[in-house]
Formats: sequence, C-alpha cells, structure tokens
Amino acid sequence: MRVGMIGLGKMGANMTRRLLGGGHEVVALDRDAAAVKAVAAVGAVPAQSIEDLLRQLPAPRAVWMMVPAGAITEQTIESLTPLLSENDLIADGGNSYYKDSMRRAAALAARGIQFVDVGTSGGIGGLKEGYSLTFGGTPAAAKRLEPVFKTLAPATDRGWAHVGPSGAGHFTKMVHNGIEYAMMQAYAEGFDLLQHKTDFKLDLAQIAQVWQSGSVVRSWLLDLTAAALTQNPTLTGIAPYVEDSGEGRWTVMEGIELGVALPTISLSLFSRFRSRDKDSYRDKLLAAMRNQFGGHAIKKD
Amino acid sequence: MRVGMIGLGKMGANMTRRLLGGGHEVVALDRDAAAVKAVAAVGAVPAQSIEDLLRQLPAPRAVWMMVPAGAITEQTIESLTPLLSENDLIADGGNSYYKDSMRRAAALAARGIQFVDVGTSGGIGGLKEGYSLTFGGTPAAAKRLEPVFKTLAPATDRGWAHVGPSGAGHFTKMVHNGIEYAMMQAYAEGFDLLQHKTDFKLDLAQIAQVWQSGSVVRSWLLDLTAAALTQNPTLTGIAPYVEDSGEGRWTVMEGIELGVALPTISLSLFSRFRSRDKDSYRDKLLAAMRNQFGGHAIKKD
Repeated sequence: MRVGMIGLGKMGANMTRRLLGGGHEVVALDRDAAAVKAVAAVGAVPAQSIEDLLRQLPAPRAVWMMVPAGAITEQTIESLTPLLSENDLIADGGNSYYKDSMRRAAALAARGIQFVDVGTSGGIGGLKEGYSLTFGGTPAAAKRLEPVFKTLAPATDRGWAHVGPSGAGHFTKMVHNGIEYAMMQAYAEGFDLLQHKTDFKLDLAQIAQVWQSGSVVRSWLLDLTAAALTQNPTLTGIAPYVEDSGEGRWTVMEGIELGVALPTISLSLFSRFRSRDKDSYRDKLLAAMRNQFGGHAIKKD
Repeated sequence: MRVGMIGLGKMGANMTRRLLGGGHEVVALDRDAAAVKAVAAVGAVPAQSIEDLLRQLPAPRAVWMMVPAGAITEQTIESLTPLLSENDLIADGGNSYYKDSMRRAAALAARGIQFVDVGTSGGIGGLKEGYSLTFGGTPAAAKRLEPVFKTLAPATDRGWAHVGPSGAGHFTKMVHNGIEYAMMQAYAEGFDLLQHKTDFKLDLAQIAQVWQSGSVVRSWLLDLTAAALTQNPTLTGIAPYVEDSGEGRWTVMEGIELGVALPTISLSLFSRFRSRDKDSYRDKLLAAMRNQFGGHAIKKD
C-alpha cells in the first residue's frame, strides 16, 4: 500500500527501507533533508512538508509516525490533525506513553480520524530481521494497516498482533521495555561478578559466546553482549553511565498505580539513576553516620 | 570415545543418548535399574555397579558424573576414588558448588587422578539442541574430553570452552544460573503487570508469541514462557510457590564475598523465598505497626 512516513531517524529510515523492499510505496518526510534524500535514493517518494506528504497520499490516507515520544509526537499530531479528513489514519510507531495514546485516539476519533498505537521493538536489527509489533486501536483501523504490519514483521504470519483497544499497543511495548531493563541488569550483574573473580582469569567474551549456544540464558540481548565483549573486552572508552528513555519509569509508575510489585524492574531503573550520580550524597551521608556512631574512618574526597 | 556415565536422570539419560548418537560408547550406571535398561535399549553398555562400570572402561578411564550436587556427588566420588588408577579422569557435569569442585580436584590430583568440573546448561532441550558447556581443570584433562564436549555441544565448534582452572567451570555455571533467576523474574514481573491491566483484556500468550519474533526481549526463556502461557493461559493448577536449587544462593554469597552488588539477582532469589511464605510474619508485623501508630485497620485472619 501507499503510506506516509514521518520521521526518518534510525528506526523510521530502516522501516521505510523494509517497506520499500516489501513492495510498498512510501512518501517520506523528515526535518533533515539529507534523511529524505537518503531514502528517496532507494525508492521512497520525497516530501517537503506535511502538506506535501498528505497531497501525495491517496484517500483515505495512512500516515505512520516514527518520531521521538513526547513533545515532538504531540506537535506532529497537532500539525497533522487539521489537514486530515475523515477516515484518514495516523499510526504512532514510537515509544509514546500509552495514556497519551489513549487521549490522542479519543481526540482524533471525535474528528473521524483513526489512530493506531504501535509498540515497535527490534532496534537496528529490525531492518534485516523484521520488527515485533503490538498495536492497539479499533479492529477496522488495525485491519487497514495489516499489509504494512506483515512487511515490517519478521514474517507475514508472526511478530505482529492487534492486542487490544487504543493504548494497548504502547502499554504492551512499555512493559516489554521494563522487562528489557531487568534482563539487561541481570546480564550486567552476572558478567560483573565473573569479571571480579580475578583468580580464574575468565574470558568474558568467550563465556558469553559459549552461552549463546544451547544455554538457558541465550537471547538476543546475550548476542549483543557477546558482540560488545568480543569487540571491546575491557569496555575501554565507555563511561559507567546509563541513560533511560522513559519506558522503565512508566512501567514502575504503572506498578504503583495497579499495586503490582515490580522489584527487579524498579531496581534496574534505580540502578541506572544511581549510575549517573558520581558524587553520591547518600554515600557521603552513610559514611558520616558510620563515623558518628562507631568512629569509623571516613575516606577523604 | 568410550566413557562411563554415572547418573541417568533427565540430564544424564539425555546426554547418554546424545553421546550414543554422536558415535561414542557409553557404559551407563544408575541406582535405578530401569534407567539403565532404558539407555541400554538404545545402545549404552549397562553397568551393575561402579566396579562393573570401571571394569568395562579402557585405561586411562574417563567417568562422567551426572548426579545431584551435594551429598550424592560427594559419595559418588568417595566410592570411585579408591577404585581409580593414576591418569583416570572424573568429570562432574552436575551443579556442584565450585569450591567443592576445587577441593575435590586438589584431593584427586594428589592421587594422580584428573578432575574436570563441567557447567552444563540446556535443560531438557539439550538432547536435541545440544548443551552449553563451560569447564575447568588442567589443559591436559580438558583436552582429553574434547570429543565428548564436541558431541554434547550444539556444534563441534561452539557451545563449549575450557574457561579456566579447576572450579572455573562450575563457577561460570553458578553465575549463569544467577543471571537466569533474574531473567525469569524480569519476565514474571512484566507478564504479571500485563495480567493486572484488566482494562485492556490482553492475551498474554499472544503477546509472548509476538515478542518471540524480532523483539529485543526474545530469548529461549521467552520461548518457554510463550509455550507455558499457550498451554495454560490461566496457569490453573500451578501453586505460586517457587523452589530454588542452590546456585542462586551461591551467586549471592559470592557477591557478598567479593563485594559486588547484585541487586536484581539477590531480589530474584529473595522473591522465591517469599513465594513460599504463605503466613508471612513480616506482613503481620507491618500491619500491627500501622495499627499502633496510625490506628489503621487490621485485616483479620
């Protein structure tokens, strides 16, 4: 089908390429003209503006957004909305907060515009291997995008599903990322322990590689870990500073809202926060307390 | 090569079958005569006793033990040792504590007997897919067993490695299981959150299946989770009671010994302990404290 793609970052550009490879027509737009040019070179139809993009789509139009969650997603939808007609469709493939997606779906529905929230997983491996897609919205809206889902997914019959009403797609992706945080933390703690067992002079890349074949802990994240450790066994040049991009926070907030204990997911998120605090007030305070009650020596700064 | 196999439980019997399939000769022993008979039926040489097993192996002999860690492993080695000759070899493929393996290797080395500690992962899928094997010991001892490793592993060139001196194989497997605990907990928490989001009426088996294809959290453990949720979506008949078999405890103890923080692995272990406590003293105490300071109502037993 012919679809618009707004946002040609790493994810959007790769998804455009995968759609083109699957025989779809993609009208592509990005703030960065070079990004548009790059996908135009492999067959996308370039667009100069939202108006230009919409002009080049047949009615009812389908526009896939692959832009950063938050303000940019909000602004993009605000720009699109007045230009769309009844039965046009917006799909948000980014990592939007599911409550935002529920609100947007309701507002758009009031204008007769369809909205599909798509939880997209796969990272940069998705171009080749396909993406895992969980989406929410009305059955009719979800159905319209099936040709696109079948191409973006690893195969036409797997890796995609309409999981529920509006918000359910992004909710599911949010929980996916919460799980991802704790899985990453599990490997990080384990390899850290191996690395500290200096008596054995273990080769961590070798161990990661062995575990890739046949072990209970084999996974795509382990494949990436093995690649990282093989390329850079001492992790030279990498600061021990871990970012987060919101989904972990929302997962923990949801646990609090629903009264569901999420001990390891919460702790994985908090470990990331802790990694950024290089002048820890709490550790100074603990040292000070130990000095107060026991006269324990304080390490000087 | 011709090797002895002591212990024909799920793991030992499957490994015997995989070795036979790879062209090895296996002299097999188990306390349970039916288990011996079962592998004899597919080509193993049955043994009636340790003496009988050793008699049927060419010198220098190689005996692979696949028995429960702890007392049974200790007793088996005690029974074997006086019957072995110099240059005979024992491989322990079970989940022994690595410090026990170091002690045993030293004691056996004093008698000229080789010892290899093999961390074996793969579970019941190993028969078909092969096992992931990390082993410790002298290079000479490890080298002798290479034909066996190449057959047990998923392929001759991957899934096995000599990772270090005696103890290093079981140490590595111990950390593997620590990681496994936290990975399992990550999925368990995530699916629990999905399950509690009743508004969306999510189909957890469907979501697990979608994530199997192309997602960042795809893994063998997710494959098993998807199978479990597909077979029994409501987990009917399964008590919320989680056992542990030692490796998680040792991992956390090692973290304490080396001063390495293992927050999510520890918490995964403690979550298992907590699952077994159906009449929680601490929760009663917390309720009592809230009542004391705030007059908050206590839920009656």
